[in-house]
Amino acid sequence: MSSVERLITALTKLPSVGRRSATRMALHLLSSKENVMHHVIASLQEAYDTVAYCSLCGNLCEHDPCQICTDSHRSSRKLCVVEDVSDLWALEQSGVFRGRYHVLGGVLSPMRGISPEHLRIALLEKRVQEEDIDEIILAMNLTVDGQATAHYITEVLEPYHKKITALAHGIPLGGELEYLDAGTLQAALTQRREL
Amino acid sequence: MSSVERLITALTKLPSVGRRSATRMALHLLSSKENVMHHVIASLQEAYDTVAYCSLCGNLCEHDPCQICTDSHRSSRKLCVVEDVSDLWALEQSGVFRGRYHVLGGVLSPMRGISPEHLRIALLEKRVQEEDIDEIILAMNLTVDGQATAHYITEVLEPYHKKITALAHGIPLGGELEYLDAGTLQAALTQRREL
Repeated sequence: MSSVERLITALTKLPSVGRRSATRMALHLLSSKENVMHHVIASLQEAYDTVAYCSLCGNLCEHDPCQICTDSHRSSRKLCVVEDVSDLWALEQSGVFRGRYHVLGGVLSPMRGISPEHLRIALLEKRVQEEDIDEIILAMNLTVDGQATAHYITEVLEPYHKKITALAHGIPLGGELEYLDAGTLQAALTQRREL
Repeated sequence: MSSVERLITALTKLPSVGRRSATRMALHLLSSKENVMHHVIASLQEAYDTVAYCSLCGNLCEHDPCQICTDSHRSSRKLCVVEDVSDLWALEQSGVFRGRYHVLGGVLSPMRGISPEHLRIALLEKRVQEEDIDEIILAMNLTVDGQATAHYITEVLEPYHKKITALAHGIPLGGELEYLDAGTLQAALTQRREL
């Protein structure tokens, strides 16, 4: 196998990149080695060398503890529990939450053999015990596994008598009823509020 | 800018990768550093160090002249002229052509300021003079610039009295008339053959 083929195969390991896209990427990289490829390699190598998980919240960051955990302008009393780093990044992008995070690193899934000890749940319990937290916001996805995980965490944290909340489920902004799935409609109807 | 952000920005330089895909890629890479990221960096670095343009045909290859130019099982009498390396790879993938190639590195385009000296046309003329070539197959794309380039090459090579052919244009296999564009239908009608 030539090094071009090895490169194409390596690029197919990226999410949603098939052989065709990987070939286009390889060609694009190799045809502008100095401008693009050199830059991509340097950025990858730099991130590889410097980025690691924050031992406190589980975010990917250059410093441990990460920028969010050490930011004194953020409230340390509100802790938002998310499944993955991508969820944390999505929330950060929106800029609506100014507290701290805790990344579980997945959800409980008996089907895929993922039990509490595979996730950062014991660490979460430790943080709730040790840190001065008022409210734990569970921001799991509205999937069976996500909701089961939220339920499990609620039970684990019950002894500490903290306020535990979950993100509201319902019609997204601009969502049209006729295009929404039954689950969302059911959640919107069950959690209806009085005007 | 953090090294994660620098990585995301570098990944958006890849073809058809926007900020969202780049973020997913960065997360995927950083969350499996040893299995995926290390491998991707090593393949990129290897290709960066070893792959270069073949000085004869213009293909991207580890050796100069490239494997295709030095393959004694391939006919050196048929030369297929393509616009880009991606076209060469597409033809190679199909396995239908067993001759040699010549990559122009683009097409003539007065609009984008690309004139004959920006392409490997002089090198093509030199090859036709020096090598023992019977037939030159012009495999340009059916675009205005592609066809103008084919026309220009035909004129340049006229003094050498070689057989110059072009790929047939028409209905692709499995193509349905009602979904084809007017240009393809016109080509198919103009180049109709007797049964």
